[in-house]
Amino acid sequence: MRFVLALWAIAVVAQTPPPPLIVSPEVHADRTVTFRFRDPNAKEVSLSREGATRAPMTRDDTGVWSITTAALEPDYYGYNFVADGVSLVDPSNTVVKPNLRGLSNMVHVPGPASLPWEGADVPHGEVHRHFYHSAMIGDDRDYYVYTPPGYDSKSKRRYPVLYLFHGFSDDASAWTAVGRANVILDNLIAQKKAKPMLIVMPLGYGVPDVVKPGSAGLGDPATRDRNYNLFRDALFTEVMPQVEKMYRASKDRNQRAIAGLSMGGAESLYIGLNALDKFSYVGSFSAGGSVDTATMFNRLDSKFNPLIHSLWIACGTDDRLIDPNRKFREFLTSRGVKFVPIETPGAHVWMVWRRNLAEFAPLLF
Amino acid sequence: MRFVLALWAIAVVAQTPPPPLIVSPEVHADRTVTFRFRDPNAKEVSLSREGATRAPMTRDDTGVWSITTAALEPDYYGYNFVADGVSLVDPSNTVVKPNLRGLSNMVHVPGPASLPWEGADVPHGEVHRHFYHSAMIGDDRDYYVYTPPGYDSKSKRRYPVLYLFHGFSDDASAWTAVGRANVILDNLIAQKKAKPMLIVMPLGYGVPDVVKPGSAGLGDPATRDRNYNLFRDALFTEVMPQVEKMYRASKDRNQRAIAGLSMGGAESLYIGLNALDKFSYVGSFSAGGSVDTATMFNRLDSKFNPLIHSLWIACGTDDRLIDPNRKFREFLTSRGVKFVPIETPGAHVWMVWRRNLAEFAPLLF
Repeated sequence: MRFVLALWAIAVVAQTPPPPLIVSPEVHADRTVTFRFRDPNAKEVSLSREGATRAPMTRDDTGVWSITTAALEPDYYGYNFVADGVSLVDPSNTVVKPNLRGLSNMVHVPGPASLPWEGADVPHGEVHRHFYHSAMIGDDRDYYVYTPPGYDSKSKRRYPVLYLFHGFSDDASAWTAVGRANVILDNLIAQKKAKPMLIVMPLGYGVPDVVKPGSAGLGDPATRDRNYNLFRDALFTEVMPQVEKMYRASKDRNQRAIAGLSMGGAESLYIGLNALDKFSYVGSFSAGGSVDTATMFNRLDSKFNPLIHSLWIACGTDDRLIDPNRKFREFLTSRGVKFVPIETPGAHVWMVWRRNLAEFAPLLF
Repeated sequence: MRFVLALWAIAVVAQTPPPPLIVSPEVHADRTVTFRFRDPNAKEVSLSREGATRAPMTRDDTGVWSITTAALEPDYYGYNFVADGVSLVDPSNTVVKPNLRGLSNMVHVPGPASLPWEGADVPHGEVHRHFYHSAMIGDDRDYYVYTPPGYDSKSKRRYPVLYLFHGFSDDASAWTAVGRANVILDNLIAQKKAKPMLIVMPLGYGVPDVVKPGSAGLGDPATRDRNYNLFRDALFTEVMPQVEKMYRASKDRNQRAIAGLSMGGAESLYIGLNALDKFSYVGSFSAGGSVDTATMFNRLDSKFNPLIHSLWIACGTDDRLIDPNRKFREFLTSRGVKFVPIETPGAHVWMVWRRNLAEFAPLLF
């Protein structure tokens, strides 16, 4: 007896939409990128690309809109199509940036292996996802832990830990799925530029409702404070004890760093600088999110300098938050607090934050 | 000195598309679901929902298309919008099904806690993502490992292992991100319906090109065989040894199961039934993918029955693969091989496969 159990196509049709007939994005050898989108009846389609001005696309006779960029620096870029005012995911690209307020795609413009976010033939660490009920916040949530290559759960030593926070609208997967934190650390560790460390990436909302569609976000100061304080309390009383029980994670302040981007940068500054018994390295990447210096940092002065191994305050030069960040640095100076000021070319974008992590991690521990 | 570091909205605008103004999907108390999509210039928009016939949506005066379903059984459903022939992700829903051939969304129609895929207040296991270079296949790839609640890496005992495979077009995250395998096992273990076990979920392609857009898939028998054989070889010589080194994973055939859906079902049958020195439980959920019984199972006969604790062959009654699956069962019968036939109401859909896992896991170990 001989027969064929199933024609392959049958299963495919039932399970997924038909394969895309359109290639998008197409990354050319000269690092220009062509984006294509079929929408025969749209009046206007544009490309919204991370860090770039929105650019109109051109329709051809068959209803396919396209645009080819100038040569792009090697990197990962987020983008959407905007068709008659509606932001859409590119149906020809299955790589998406997870986000709680709106999905977008990513396109990879490959570069030399020396770029810290490029996948390389080096030992790889692992990414662990943990699920728990937060009694502090009252929801079911997750956090991610990166363990470095060769991590030994039976080791006597404890590993240093970077607590790393995402931005507003991101979820807990952002630093690995978009920020490539695991790839960056794999590479830095292989090159002996960074020490083997754990990275703990929690969900960064103390008030989860702030990120729901239609929410006013962190505009209201009482909500903002509750968001930061509950996040901190969940971090201190839930995430850190769980991590320190499950992993060989250091409890020594000299072996703990706290950093984050945008809202997560504000969280790192607020939580870290007010808990120097727990942390000795603080990194802020493009901090944002209604930080009130007088109430949130009123204890800061020069007597804390000996406790801080590094206070690293970065922002993109084209970020609309560069002025508030400069003002925050002036505030620190006025209090006699030492810090490292970093200004990176770029806007409020992941291209800056990946570079920030790749520069910050080598300073640690 | 007092100032506000940043208005929240600034950061949000720079980083993400504007928040959606449209609520979609909206799950009503009576379990009907309304889907909405703004596309003012489209001529035709329809809803493509997992397991349902494509249904036309209706346009209102403002250019918003909508449809409300009949009451749906509690479950997770995949869906897309199809606008003028193009499959699109719902821009108002950030929950997507990862897939290598085309993204779709998921909507959750909540049900009672007794449903195995509903999140519940029980101890949770963890999901670990591993990255490695496959010398066998020649690419960089990943696999996922579920560890049950209370998993002890320092335990003397070894845990039983279910090797669980996804379908064609899925990636290695499918069984957790879509199939909710970790949630299902958390619940079954809490209810003492399943034993604490590891689940290993590898990337299921021996020939990764088969899943690339425009590829002919597994239609060509030589490609199909190479795909299955290289996948098996990578499993045996790369994934299993890594897992058994890093985890307390059993190497005893009596403590090993192999199962999968669609293409992964065919892989489970082919690999498992030809390697009864390694596996003693074999599960096939809606197997598909050009399985040639004469060449792939030519060794099978009744003398293998004592080696098989369970050969569990399931398919949805409305699946276009039900006939080939019934024929495969006839083939097994003709060879004197014992098996458990399972027919579940439903088509070639995840609603069937989640139920399959919830039924199969309690039979193991």
